[in-house]
Amino acid sequence: MKKEFLLAPGPSQVPAETLLEMAKPVFHHRTKRFQNIFAEVQEGLKYVFQTKNPVLVFASSGTGAMEGSVSSVLSPGDKAITVTGGKFGQRWKNLCKAFGAEAIELTVEWGKSVDPETIKDLLQQHKDVKAVYVTLVETSTGTLADIRKIGEIVKDTGAILVVDAVSGLGADKLLTDEWNVDIAVAGSQKALMLPPGLAFAAVSEKAWKAIENAKTSNFYFNYKKAKASLDKNDTAFTPAVTLIIGLKKSLDMIKEETIEKVWKRHADNAASMRSAVEAIGLKLFSSNPANAVTAVVLPEGVDGLAFVKKIRDEYGVTMAGGQDHVKGKIFRVAQMGYANQFDTVVASSAVEMVLSELGYKFDKGSATKAAVAELIKRGVK
Amino acid sequence: MKKEFLLAPGPSQVPAETLLEMAKPVFHHRTKRFQNIFAEVQEGLKYVFQTKNPVLVFASSGTGAMEGSVSSVLSPGDKAITVTGGKFGQRWKNLCKAFGAEAIELTVEWGKSVDPETIKDLLQQHKDVKAVYVTLVETSTGTLADIRKIGEIVKDTGAILVVDAVSGLGADKLLTDEWNVDIAVAGSQKALMLPPGLAFAAVSEKAWKAIENAKTSNFYFNYKKAKASLDKNDTAFTPAVTLIIGLKKSLDMIKEETIEKVWKRHADNAASMRSAVEAIGLKLFSSNPANAVTAVVLPEGVDGLAFVKKIRDEYGVTMAGGQDHVKGKIFRVAQMGYANQFDTVVASSAVEMVLSELGYKFDKGSATKAAVAELIKRGVK
Repeated sequence: MKKEFLLAPGPSQVPAETLLEMAKPVFHHRTKRFQNIFAEVQEGLKYVFQTKNPVLVFASSGTGAMEGSVSSVLSPGDKAITVTGGKFGQRWKNLCKAFGAEAIELTVEWGKSVDPETIKDLLQQHKDVKAVYVTLVETSTGTLADIRKIGEIVKDTGAILVVDAVSGLGADKLLTDEWNVDIAVAGSQKALMLPPGLAFAAVSEKAWKAIENAKTSNFYFNYKKAKASLDKNDTAFTPAVTLIIGLKKSLDMIKEETIEKVWKRHADNAASMRSAVEAIGLKLFSSNPANAVTAVVLPEGVDGLAFVKKIRDEYGVTMAGGQDHVKGKIFRVAQMGYANQFDTVVASSAVEMVLSELGYKFDKGSATKAAVAELIKRGVK
Repeated sequence: MKKEFLLAPGPSQVPAETLLEMAKPVFHHRTKRFQNIFAEVQEGLKYVFQTKNPVLVFASSGTGAMEGSVSSVLSPGDKAITVTGGKFGQRWKNLCKAFGAEAIELTVEWGKSVDPETIKDLLQQHKDVKAVYVTLVETSTGTLADIRKIGEIVKDTGAILVVDAVSGLGADKLLTDEWNVDIAVAGSQKALMLPPGLAFAAVSEKAWKAIENAKTSNFYFNYKKAKASLDKNDTAFTPAVTLIIGLKKSLDMIKEETIEKVWKRHADNAASMRSAVEAIGLKLFSSNPANAVTAVVLPEGVDGLAFVKKIRDEYGVTMAGGQDHVKGKIFRVAQMGYANQFDTVVASSAVEMVLSELGYKFDKGSATKAAVAELIKRGVK
């Protein structure tokens, strides 16, 4: 018998209750029955995003809503600032390029957070920047950005602030409206406890003004069209019905727990996970670690590819390895979504078992001890 | 007790076996386990499309793959022929417009099939047309196009033939390769017996050559990028994992039945449905009816909106009404996907019950009698 634990940074675990809700017979979306669910989903999304603004819903992976936040906002030749500190930051630059906008790329060392002051400087040098594209949680490095401070800087300029919150939403604190985020983009398969297939975008008044004047070619991810449908409690194209029904269930669970407690749960589990790996001499990859996902540097001599394969295939615990230049050098374990303190305990112990097998020397059991001690210290229950 | 029958032209019924398969715990997509499923799905899709070419898979509704077949093929200013005989044909024109291509629109009366000769004439007048966009089954009118003949015409020109087979694939016969279709686009929620959320595109060698030179801005629906990932048995962006797992199940069911028998089942049920409504004096809306969906003109004095509402809310049978100028005047009942002869018997009897309630005079039971007689005549079992 092998029990499976999906602790990769997306797709993440989906509660059995949600899976079974989605397994009920499909019904038509142009009905009161579906519209009632969609209206509740809209309220739930506003709560999770902490916004009063409408939240667009697309049938796509998170990248779809990211694409829309470029193609619906910028015209060819427009200037945008993009921050790259990992794989996903890079996607902003690639999107700008794909739609003919000029990306001023701010490169940050992998594992470091962007210094908000460097964005301020760039905005002063380039008064005609239309949008600043950043990442709340850079999944490839487990790094959190200081969106609140960046929001303070961008709000008084002509530019809008667009945040990729795909990995972060519902895991790391994000106050979309209060922090002056103009577009926050998310996906279903991270802390929203759903399979992949839905993307979201919360869009501010300031962003709608920018969208009004944009001239890039688009269709499926056209925000204006999505908004016009949403105003009629509908989607522009056939919605991913079952996923939206599952989303209703997940949002209900978040509302019941409260978003503040959800954030605290992620913070507690992430702190516990960090204590665990540090207790056996491992280093965190990020200098400003997110709560959604913990990136850990593997000890010299331990093959990261073997680590990830072994922990998944032999222990049933799925984590992720590193990408690009850190491939084989780090592993990433997620605390996102449907994960509680016992997932962290499991993760800590599995890491120990595999590292031991791979020849790393440490005081056996001490990572898990540290994880448990941290959870108790934080009064987690 | 009210049993529900989803007989609308998408979303359509999903087998309980598939729903339960999708309700199993989610697992990661960058694993052998998922890759094995994805490779089998690829073979299954090729079989259903009747193509040797790769079939791209997107997390989106069918429109996404349609968008890609415009934005990946045409450059701004390129000429394309689009055929509009209903809501979905119109989408081709709208897509061309959205991406700056020049659409030469061939307008056909709703309910009529396009005359392939008119496409031939247009291609002779405009030698520089890059692509011809048509619809296999126009869902809004229940009309089938003669794709084989259109393929004969387009194949010897420089243009490629792009077919929206969203409603048709797996219901009405489509031999993608043999009929010289260069791009055939489909979605999950019609005859593939799945919820909405996946889109597909089978792409020919000739189409890949056209794609090579296209210069339109795109990203998520970029066919080249999708193909590059597919060559590594992967998707460019996070796949809709659960839907792909369900797709494997549905494709297995189609393979077991064989595609020829699947087409025959749809043909039998559609013929039976047509006999039913004609037996009580109703007229078909289409002069060349598809097997996927049957559009029926309601008798004078019968309110179409009331008909659709009543049959769904009081009898539990979901059908669709008419759109645009035929709103309230027709109803549409689908035979697509997970529907057999007994769904047609149910549909026929429900139509009788509701028409009777709405005051239409006819020989009670005679529609269902005709449906059953047609099924027996065809030896359906």
